[in-house]
Amino acid sequence: MSLLINFSIFPLDKGESVSQYVARAVKIIKDSGLICELGPMGTSIEGEWDEVMDVVTRCFEELKRDCSRVYLGITGDYRKKGKDRITAKVKSVEEKL
Amino acid sequence: MSLLINFSIFPLDKGESVSQYVARAVKIIKDSGLICELGPMGTSIEGEWDEVMDVVTRCFEELKRDCSRVYLGITGDYRKKGKDRITAKVKSVEEKL
Amino acid sequence: MSLLINFSIFPLDKGESVSQYVARAVKIIKDSGLICELGPMGTSIEGEWDEVMDVVTRCFEELKRDCSRVYLGITGDYRKKGKDRITAKVKSVEEKL
Amino acid sequence: MSLLINFSIFPLDKGESVSQYVARAVKIIKDSGLICELGPMGTSIEGEWDEVMDVVTRCFEELKRDCSRVYLGITGDYRKKGKDRITAKVKSVEEKL
Repeated sequence: MSLLINFSIFPLDKGESVSQYVARAVKIIKDSGLICELGPMGTSIEGEWDEVMDVVTRCFEELKRDCSRVYLGITGDYRKKGKDRITAKVKSVEEKL
Repeated sequence: MSLLINFSIFPLDKGESVSQYVARAVKIIKDSGLICELGPMGTSIEGEWDEVMDVVTRCFEELKRDCSRVYLGITGDYRKKGKDRITAKVKSVEEKL
Repeated sequence: MSLLINFSIFPLDKGESVSQYVARAVKIIKDSGLICELGPMGTSIEGEWDEVMDVVTRCFEELKRDCSRVYLGITGDYRKKGKDRITAKVKSVEEKL
Repeated sequence: MSLLINFSIFPLDKGESVSQYVARAVKIIKDSGLICELGPMGTSIEGEWDEVMDVVTRCFEELKRDCSRVYLGITGDYRKKGKDRITAKVKSVEEKL
């Protein structure tokens, strides 16, 4: 089984440039050891539900330390069968192009 | 402090009509006792991070019992100050119309 | 046929309180005459694709007049059959609770 | 100025495997000539508002030809200054890691 999410998180009270806050979240994701891929509109993460949600929770806790408003988006795609979906999904589409 | 989310979850392997699956998730949300509001494109839920995410997790576990592919979307808005934001946000916008 | 969307839009360069900007978008949506419903995490809008997207475009143009960074989210659900889905979807779930 | 979106679209009435439908949308995006990047949870597209939304509209029209229910998600990030943001945003975060 495999849960794949796209995750984005950023503060609303720090002005227009938020990449230093995003980087603090991305560091937590990378350090987690989960399979992940940084993209222009979010980071894709693959794993079991509990481990993925644990990482998301730690990113949120990191930002709320010094941000008074935080926005986040998660889209998730769970499939009973399948693994390495972070690369398999793109490959499956590209084969059909 | 207050976390407000919009949450939607549905199976991809059950055909075009998914409301019976959505209803199983909504029942869990309502039974949780958290402040919530059912809308046409998702359910808004307000609470502490852990209690909101616990409900989301239980909805996911309910659907994965008999669904082989599940899609979900969460958008979250956390604010250090504020409560009853599920009604206050709409009121704040309407006052400015 | 019927397209139903949830739509949210807000600036990132105006600090933590953004309801006056959200209100400018909501005014455009309401004045459009399309069926809509203001919620805590976005506004639901129902209509034909072109008329819904035209309203979204006008909201974006309104905010970019004086905002240097704008974030927006759209989730859409199109169904060939069905109308008044903005109320019918909620009713369909509530009947199954 | 630059609009960057993450875009996903898929049918709900075609069962669990939807990559052939996703591929039809991705083909339209790639053929548009806009800067784009296929990811595991959506395709990032960069351009002017009208050209990006025109591509999204054509993807929707392609799928509704033979799908009776279609779900789509768009998250957009507009910035007055900046270009090549599809690569610049990731680079800006990676520099801070």
